[in-house]
Amino acid sequence: MNGKIISVKELDALVFGIFRQIGCPATDARKVTDVLIAAELRGIPSHGVARVMDYVGMYRAKRINVRPKPGIVHEMPSTATIDGDNGFGMIPGVMAMKLAIKKAKTHGSGWVSVFNSNHYGIAGYYAMMAAEKNMIGISATNANPLVAPTFSVSRLLGTNPLAVAIPAGKYPHFVADFATTPIARGKLALMEKKGEKAPGGFIQDEHGMPSNDPSVLKRGGAILPLGSDYEHGSHKGYCLGALADIFSSVLGGANFGPFVPPQIPYLPLPEHQPGKGLGHFFGAFRIDAFRPADEFTAAMEEWIETFRKAKPAKGQKKVLIPGDPERENTEKNLRSGITVLSATWDALSEIGNELKIKH
Amino acid sequence: MNGKIISVKELDALVFGIFRQIGCPATDARKVTDVLIAAELRGIPSHGVARVMDYVGMYRAKRINVRPKPGIVHEMPSTATIDGDNGFGMIPGVMAMKLAIKKAKTHGSGWVSVFNSNHYGIAGYYAMMAAEKNMIGISATNANPLVAPTFSVSRLLGTNPLAVAIPAGKYPHFVADFATTPIARGKLALMEKKGEKAPGGFIQDEHGMPSNDPSVLKRGGAILPLGSDYEHGSHKGYCLGALADIFSSVLGGANFGPFVPPQIPYLPLPEHQPGKGLGHFFGAFRIDAFRPADEFTAAMEEWIETFRKAKPAKGQKKVLIPGDPERENTEKNLRSGITVLSATWDALSEIGNELKIKH
Repeated sequence: MNGKIISVKELDALVFGIFRQIGCPATDARKVTDVLIAAELRGIPSHGVARVMDYVGMYRAKRINVRPKPGIVHEMPSTATIDGDNGFGMIPGVMAMKLAIKKAKTHGSGWVSVFNSNHYGIAGYYAMMAAEKNMIGISATNANPLVAPTFSVSRLLGTNPLAVAIPAGKYPHFVADFATTPIARGKLALMEKKGEKAPGGFIQDEHGMPSNDPSVLKRGGAILPLGSDYEHGSHKGYCLGALADIFSSVLGGANFGPFVPPQIPYLPLPEHQPGKGLGHFFGAFRIDAFRPADEFTAAMEEWIETFRKAKPAKGQKKVLIPGDPERENTEKNLRSGITVLSATWDALSEIGNELKIKH
Repeated sequence: MNGKIISVKELDALVFGIFRQIGCPATDARKVTDVLIAAELRGIPSHGVARVMDYVGMYRAKRINVRPKPGIVHEMPSTATIDGDNGFGMIPGVMAMKLAIKKAKTHGSGWVSVFNSNHYGIAGYYAMMAAEKNMIGISATNANPLVAPTFSVSRLLGTNPLAVAIPAGKYPHFVADFATTPIARGKLALMEKKGEKAPGGFIQDEHGMPSNDPSVLKRGGAILPLGSDYEHGSHKGYCLGALADIFSSVLGGANFGPFVPPQIPYLPLPEHQPGKGLGHFFGAFRIDAFRPADEFTAAMEEWIETFRKAKPAKGQKKVLIPGDPERENTEKNLRSGITVLSATWDALSEIGNELKIKH
């Protein structure tokens, strides 16, 4: 694919400018930009600046509130729920994770549910906010329904990611951040563009039969849960996706499963909405909530060392610690700039021109 | 396989008698028996009475304390750690879940880590303890290392299960309880006994190459993480298994990964033990920690109804809600008795005779 290398500074300025121009207050535009740029740095372009076009489209379709006032609507000592006021997901998202961290400081753990929200970018961003404060961070979200439960053809779940970041003392944080499916929708779209077949175990057709056609989602097909088929534990992937959905919606009041509002402006909203908007879930633990901090840190450092020393399989170089690839991407991209697909850059640049932003 | 149908009452009495005879106080013998019988009822015989022989063997090898005094060693308002005093895992396990529930009552959520413990049976038992109190229950444990991380041949993780039970109002609880691997070790052992080949995607040989030989674990092979291979997301299964391990060990002080003491009496203990015993993790949420209870319940009921109505795939009868198969097994087994493998019954009966228990 054709790409253009853009410096982090230039890309950040353009994205920030766009969100300012559509009416976001500076602090909000900064949050949205930071999360999108973090995805680019970490090498997850499906959740990066390519989303700006959809975000602006959502604003133009009057589906997003660019000046939200999110607030706490329910609370117990270690828990709370925030109404996202239909803003970009990053606004209540960052607020919710800060609140979880604050509650964890006093109570050992803190848990915050968000409803009436929208796409919040990479789940790992929020989990890492806690790790930066030397806490364990957890986040999950629900998303557009594209995944069918085991034995079904109905698209009832999103690719619902789960992220957990764990501070590891003198080593970089352990950061797990993954969709509860074998493949992300973005990768299927790329295969379709390139005219490639999808390997088995990713998708099914409208009858629930295995398919290799990446365009099958357009004709009633579905993405499979992690595990791919029942024999290999797809019911476990279904459980995981369902848990991310329930914790992000039923808990606090967002829409669940098939009723999650699409985060793409031209897709119609579901007629029935049992909740409000899309939902997220956030958690934080003090590392000394269960034992003295120095003991936790020493054990986590030894855990990392043990797994780093694992013997590689034949033909493999090394065993990875969750978060390694994204950290290596970040270091590389900070040095050399971010490669943005030409089509994405052109679209972004066009929006920039429309909004009269120098770039 | 040859089986013998035993009434729940008879099986319960024999197992309870065995644990009394080896020295467990009545309340402790009751807890161990309840969890093992629950596994039989739910149709998970790998975690049922077949474990009694290993448990008794652990006692005879002086690896288990049959009169443990577990106690809280560290605490914050919403968190705590319990030293299991090297008892059967059910003793600190039940104590820990009760404590998590108690903390959740006051603080919205409660989280308890257990170290210096042993095999605790099915993770779902503990999660369901919370659901019975109309709370969300969570549990995980680590286990004997048999699973290799993606790209590795080293067996660093157990099949580390995760269980979450969610009350669903007028419907049975949602109960997800699953190993973070495509297959359980017990099923591989069964294939080996029957002389069957294992399907692809379950195991690898000592070089990390795909294998169909279920006996490969005896020659340095390993079980694969959920997802089976990198292309289908086995790194996500590796993350899940690692998270269950870290939450069960690094958090509270148990041994992690390859250092988890084997729960089989004839396997040697690891020379290096960075922690104490095996570990578990427990959590509970009030359903009204995030919104009023009636709203939570109405939303969860609609979630269940929506997923029950999912259209089955071609050739499938219906979509399952997590917990359905185990509940159906329980109803059947309560009616008709429990089918115990002849070999298991003979071994159990022999221990009963040795300990002079009428059965």
